Amino acid sequence: MSAPDETVIDDARRDAVRAYLEAHASEFVAQLSEWLRIPSIWTDPARHDDVQRSAQWLSDALRSTGFPTVEVWNAGSDGTGAPAVFAEWPAGVSGAPTVLVYGHHDVQPVDPEELWSFAPFDPMVVPGPDGDRLLGRGASDDKGQVFYHLLGLQANLAVSGRSSPPVNLKLLIEGAEESGSPGFPELLLERKDRLACDVIVVSDTGMYGGGTTTACVGMRGLTDCQIDLHGPDVDLHSGSFGGAVPNPLTVLAHLLAGLHDDEGRITLKGFYDSIRPLTDRERALIARLPFDESAWLATAASRAASGEVGYSTLERVWVRPTCEIHGVWGGYTGPGHKTIVPTDAHAKVSFRLVADQEPLDVQAAFRDYIKAKVPDGITADVHFFGEGVRPYLVPLDDPALQAVSRSLARAFDDEVLYTREGGSGPEADIARILHAPLMFLGVGLPTDRIHAPDEHAVVPLLLKGAEAVAYLWDELAASQST
Amino acid sequence: MSAPDETVIDDARRDAVRAYLEAHASEFVAQLSEWLRIPSIWTDPARHDDVQRSAQWLSDALRSTGFPTVEVWNAGSDGTGAPAVFAEWPAGVSGAPTVLVYGHHDVQPVDPEELWSFAPFDPMVVPGPDGDRLLGRGASDDKGQVFYHLLGLQANLAVSGRSSPPVNLKLLIEGAEESGSPGFPELLLERKDRLACDVIVVSDTGMYGGGTTTACVGMRGLTDCQIDLHGPDVDLHSGSFGGAVPNPLTVLAHLLAGLHDDEGRITLKGFYDSIRPLTDRERALIARLPFDESAWLATAASRAASGEVGYSTLERVWVRPTCEIHGVWGGYTGPGHKTIVPTDAHAKVSFRLVADQEPLDVQAAFRDYIKAKVPDGITADVHFFGEGVRPYLVPLDDPALQAVSRSLARAFDDEVLYTREGGSGPEADIARILHAPLMFLGVGLPTDRIHAPDEHAVVPLLLKGAEAVAYLWDELAASQST
Repeated sequence: MSAPDETVIDDARRDAVRAYLEAHASEFVAQLSEWLRIPSIWTDPARHDDVQRSAQWLSDALRSTGFPTVEVWNAGSDGTGAPAVFAEWPAGVSGAPTVLVYGHHDVQPVDPEELWSFAPFDPMVVPGPDGDRLLGRGASDDKGQVFYHLLGLQANLAVSGRSSPPVNLKLLIEGAEESGSPGFPELLLERKDRLACDVIVVSDTGMYGGGTTTACVGMRGLTDCQIDLHGPDVDLHSGSFGGAVPNPLTVLAHLLAGLHDDEGRITLKGFYDSIRPLTDRERALIARLPFDESAWLATAASRAASGEVGYSTLERVWVRPTCEIHGVWGGYTGPGHKTIVPTDAHAKVSFRLVADQEPLDVQAAFRDYIKAKVPDGITADVHFFGEGVRPYLVPLDDPALQAVSRSLARAFDDEVLYTREGGSGPEADIARILHAPLMFLGVGLPTDRIHAPDEHAVVPLLLKGAEAVAYLWDELAASQST
Repeated sequence: MSAPDETVIDDARRDAVRAYLEAHASEFVAQLSEWLRIPSIWTDPARHDDVQRSAQWLSDALRSTGFPTVEVWNAGSDGTGAPAVFAEWPAGVSGAPTVLVYGHHDVQPVDPEELWSFAPFDPMVVPGPDGDRLLGRGASDDKGQVFYHLLGLQANLAVSGRSSPPVNLKLLIEGAEESGSPGFPELLLERKDRLACDVIVVSDTGMYGGGTTTACVGMRGLTDCQIDLHGPDVDLHSGSFGGAVPNPLTVLAHLLAGLHDDEGRITLKGFYDSIRPLTDRERALIARLPFDESAWLATAASRAASGEVGYSTLERVWVRPTCEIHGVWGGYTGPGHKTIVPTDAHAKVSFRLVADQEPLDVQAAFRDYIKAKVPDGITADVHFFGEGVRPYLVPLDDPALQAVSRSLARAFDDEVLYTREGGSGPEADIARILHAPLMFLGVGLPTDRIHAPDEHAVVPLLLKGAEAVAYLWDELAASQST
């Protein structure tokens, strides 16, 4: 919950920003629509030229906005990776903080295209229940959210009368985020001097929806693996051998069932030791979010909620680590019956992590668990898919978060509550490589249908995003200088 | 362990039987070889004529032996099922017990035929480590074991000088045992008046091997099922929903892991209540069988033995009920990873049962277990494959078993120990339909390669089978009349 009275944006400034945005709204939508016509799908090699065109379009727009430095950086050591757009505009005053804005200009594929009710790359505006909607792939994820940064900066400059932003502003707009960002961490490492900053602002997330003004403050981490158990070297007749040799499927069931205790807690040794405690304030703020469990269950297509004892549904998916089984297989799985003791059993298992759990520590604890529980006669192989993804969490008392909250509160005339994402992204690694705290500023909605047919953005929310940006650089400059 | 001094076969009779068998051994092998040339594979519709020819061949052989009644009964209500051969020869004295011998004249398929080192239907005799071997499909399972009944009876009659057997002798030799006996229970029910008997003798099993003389006294029962669990109606993103809705794979792991306690005992309510206690004598006799665990493990291709605490390996597979998982599947099972909470989870599970557990009681207990353990939000469907197979057990003090043991002890000049089969067969139902105790008299060896390429029988053992038969009718007549 922000304290609106700390804002450096007075009412006159606010009114002027709003007038500016209102005056430029049509042009904003028209220009964004032009960008949305470019099908910048990096996953499809046939679209790589379009991704380059998209980078070029953005570069031109940034130059028109006034950025003195605009460069296209191709990811990958041979320079044939996706084009990221880098832009930089130093502050007009010395001692100003440096901000790096992260977003992406590539978009998800559109198949199956027949499920769209409009042409995904022929954007148009239609009325919606929450104001005009801009229809088109990328409208919400993420071109719309990148483009309001340009409008927000223009409003800031026009209204303040300054010729440079109040912070040293850098933008890095990636070109292959929807393909898992190949080569991007390496690009960050290589260019980390040019990307040096005091705070990172990611505009690639959303709000809670239902008219509640929120800022995201965390993502869960992830590490996942496959377990392969081997028992007898041949399938055995269960009449002749059943009950007298270890059955790998029975062992697998014990291993998987033993991962949770009766209260839904994960049993790996030391698993909870490094978790940053949930503060009473964090908990109280989550509890203030309007939550309709039956609507949530309908979205999940599940008949019940369940999980760790002592936590609400939102807490279970946001602030608590979890362990899920994604697949199991082994033995006879065809029609009818075949009474064997099978040779093998397999499972895929993941752990979602919260700050400050380390994926590699969890991997080690899981290996120890398997080693201790697998009986004689069964061999176990555990293969983790990579080193995992670290969780990321912004403390509520972080000054940069408070600046984000004040900007949102001013833009939305509302108090700001806090959400988290249950999923996992590269934020922790970006923050770690660039040695800077990372904030989320996003105005997408859960109903925007990102990654799905009929993606759209709510135009008034994009404009609120621009408004928050118009305030944020002043709020950040003020918070850094105090 | 039999008491050899109770036998009614004196040494003179024994010597005469052995002389008879020695004199007729070549003819026995020659005739059996003729029968083995008929590829009576009921599973292959193209071989149905051969199965009819096999029935005809046996009928002729039974008539030549002297059976006054020989009939072919086709199974199935329309008479197009496999031909069983029925033969009957009343005792020469009134008040004699009635014995029904069961065996089968159909054989297993021979594919892959390229793995045979000889032609499966071109039988021949070759020297082996345990005496001459008769090579050919059906030599051990089960034509060889049926045919020694004819030779044994001829020896009994020739040596005793009687013109009829000392018991009312009936034979029922089935034609589709290797196909799961379709229509056979119905045939038993329809003809149960003609099949009425005081004791049933099944010659379709083997001995322990390694030179130990044994009689089988039991088979385990079986009931098996498929469990289908359904959770969310769509695969869910484990970041957004993981940890807050029940995961059917986690529930499945708990259900399957909970079937055994820490001592390897099955946890279903009342599961052990109806088990006939293992007597000290039964246990001591099993312990006397030579058992080489490392050799057993090599056969199992398993690296360890394990199972219910307090029982030996042989006890675990013979005298204790077990529960095995035969297959599990659900969720994502392809390469790499896909972090979902899946919609469904499946498993195939069986229970092997021992006397006097009832398959339908176990099915009910399992359904109760599933119902009690499945949490809200998961639906469970349990489908049992049929009504299951009842276990069968012969008490060691059964007079008919003692007669079988005395016959074997006399034939092998050895004490008789007792084995069981861990697998499951129709014996309990045959005994139940015909209201008579059922005994096993078999001389197959574990090394006979039944159901596999290179099936063979050990000729001296087939002759020992004939010798035991030559004594058994007198032993049974004597035991029934006392």
